[in-house]
Amino acid sequence: DPKLKLLACNSNPKLAEEIAVAIGVPLGESRVMRFSDGEIHMQLDESVRGASVFVIQSTSYPVNENLMELLIMVDALKRASAKTINVVIPYYGYARQDRKARSRDPITAKLVANLIETAGAHRVVTMDLHATQIQGFFDIPVDQLLGVPILGQYFKEKNLEDIVVVSPDHGGVVRARKLADYLAAPLAIIDKRRPEPNVSEVMNIIGDIEGKTAIIIDDIIDTAGTITLAAHAMMKEGVKEVYACCTHPVLSGPAMQRIDDSPIKEVVVTNTIPLHHESVSPKIKSLSVAPLIGEAIVRIYEELSISKLFET
Amino acid sequence: DPKLKLLACNSNPKLAEEIAVAIGVPLGESRVMRFSDGEIHMQLDESVRGASVFVIQSTSYPVNENLMELLIMVDALKRASAKTINVVIPYYGYARQDRKARSRDPITAKLVANLIETAGAHRVVTMDLHATQIQGFFDIPVDQLLGVPILGQYFKEKNLEDIVVVSPDHGGVVRARKLADYLAAPLAIIDKRRPEPNVSEVMNIIGDIEGKTAIIIDDIIDTAGTITLAAHAMMKEGVKEVYACCTHPVLSGPAMQRIDDSPIKEVVVTNTIPLHHESVSPKIKSLSVAPLIGEAIVRIYEELSISKLFET
Ligand SMILES: Nc1ncnc2c1ncn2[C@@H]1O[C@H](COP(=O)(O)O)[C@@H](O)[C@H]1O
Ligand SMILES: Nc1ncnc2c1ncn2[C@@H]1O[C@H](COP(=O)(O)O)[C@@H](O)[C@H]1O
Repeated sequence: DPKLKLLACNSNPKLAEEIAVAIGVPLGESRVMRFSDGEIHMQLDESVRGASVFVIQSTSYPVNENLMELLIMVDALKRASAKTINVVIPYYGYARQDRKARSRDPITAKLVANLIETAGAHRVVTMDLHATQIQGFFDIPVDQLLGVPILGQYFKEKNLEDIVVVSPDHGGVVRARKLADYLAAPLAIIDKRRPEPNVSEVMNIIGDIEGKTAIIIDDIIDTAGTITLAAHAMMKEGVKEVYACCTHPVLSGPAMQRIDDSPIKEVVVTNTIPLHHESVSPKIKSLSVAPLIGEAIVRIYEELSISKLFET
Repeated sequence: DPKLKLLACNSNPKLAEEIAVAIGVPLGESRVMRFSDGEIHMQLDESVRGASVFVIQSTSYPVNENLMELLIMVDALKRASAKTINVVIPYYGYARQDRKARSRDPITAKLVANLIETAGAHRVVTMDLHATQIQGFFDIPVDQLLGVPILGQYFKEKNLEDIVVVSPDHGGVVRARKLADYLAAPLAIIDKRRPEPNVSEVMNIIGDIEGKTAIIIDDIIDTAGTITLAAHAMMKEGVKEVYACCTHPVLSGPAMQRIDDSPIKEVVVTNTIPLHHESVSPKIKSLSVAPLIGEAIVRIYEELSISKLFET
């Protein structure tokens, strides 16, 4: 059977280390450095010949640096005769640029898929794609893992009473329903409407939230505008308390300040993206996806190994 | 005939503007911005349908940002039905990673070629590739322009006497000979030898330099270690004065300080890479490649237009 090799680029070394511990396979000897002029300098310090390699790299901030690190790593692995190159991208950047929202827009999520395949990847493992359609941008297998069970488990253990799960928009209903099912709770949806052009949006809440404990769920929390406005709107409608959760804590720009200043009690996230901020709000609780990703890696590796029996 | 459209990303706006002036074609309406999380946000504000588009972008520092800008621009142009997408890359970054110097090295110059083709480019125009082999990394036409006539013209007008052109290594002899021919001057070569392992390199000068005005020529000046050490070695051998020149002023890390502290009288460069440094040494003289690139664009455009006659 081919050897299982685990490698990491620089986006999320702590998560990579946790995955290595979770499955009992050490991280391979590789270093991704920079030359004096900023070009990426890759060094693979051990053989990967014939191995099933899993490379861990989120394309989170700084997204272009992290993406190029991943592509160059895949190129090096291909030329070093790895048997299969599996890229584990816990957070898939550029996922919100998944369609032509305006004419002459690029479709960067598709471009990135093409770049990853061109570099030589054989399989992608990722979590909570912003749009499931992105799986179809690839011509190689894409396994999408979901954060809902991890987030749901946490809220279950909190023993909150009279919960309502809230989707911040219509696009997030499928995800919110999964969490609602997990917690055996009802669902509410925030319906954003612009009553007239150039008048600011109004948030209508569809569903019963009065006196309840609301849990807003989204895939990404970026500038935290959506969830903090939603929390204010829900407080006005008489909700008891508001929690928020997401898989991918992008948390750019004013996000931390907005969360601190909001009526939200706790923001539960996962570690697909590291919290690199100078100061992290005490309201943020981060859960590890390492056991989940580790299990996926082992399953895929076993599948790859079994398939070898049928090959010749 | 298809329209000629000129567009630029962010690496070198001044050069792009100069090219636009040189050929009398205004720069197209496009903006390459960033979202709050650092993702590139492209906006093409005019139609490119059916046009012959030339996009100007050096993949100089910050190389990964600049490369991704270019790839996303090409993706947007492709989806906006440009007829031909010609990418003008005055400085082609990652060109020194053009072979496996050690085992398990990536070949990033080739990866970048693949990425540019995958994005949808039809033709590349570039200047002084670090290795000519890089043309072969592409399956689309690559036009390579040379800086030697621009640099040579400048030195001719200086009316220096008793010149010797110096190649800083054996790999640069072809380029140095072109400059020597241009200036009707003899050639010298610096031969670096490491007499024993762990002993520092010795620079032997092959050719007669005593009492002469030396002009060192290289494709790239990066940290300026090579040329400043060479200048010191030549001064010891009794050269009269030393000039240096190159097409691509990468000038990273200690380069400016080294040039300032060196016996080199003047460092003549071109504007394929902007001098973004806080303080630029007064020894640096920058020449514009805009007329040269402009002429190439016009010639290629005319060729593309003529070929249309034979198409149907
Ligand atoms: N990195 C980003 N940050 C903020 N907005 C983005 C980003 N990428 C894409 N968008 C915009 O988000 C919208 C798509 O988001 P959505 O409707 O949630 O799928 C489009 O209008 C995009 O222009
Ligand atoms: N951006 C860079 N900065 C400094 N050295 C580099 C860079 N890219 C590649 N190299 C190294 O330069 C050598 C190739 O340069 P050359 O022999 O001049 O073609 C290889 O050993 C590379 O590892």
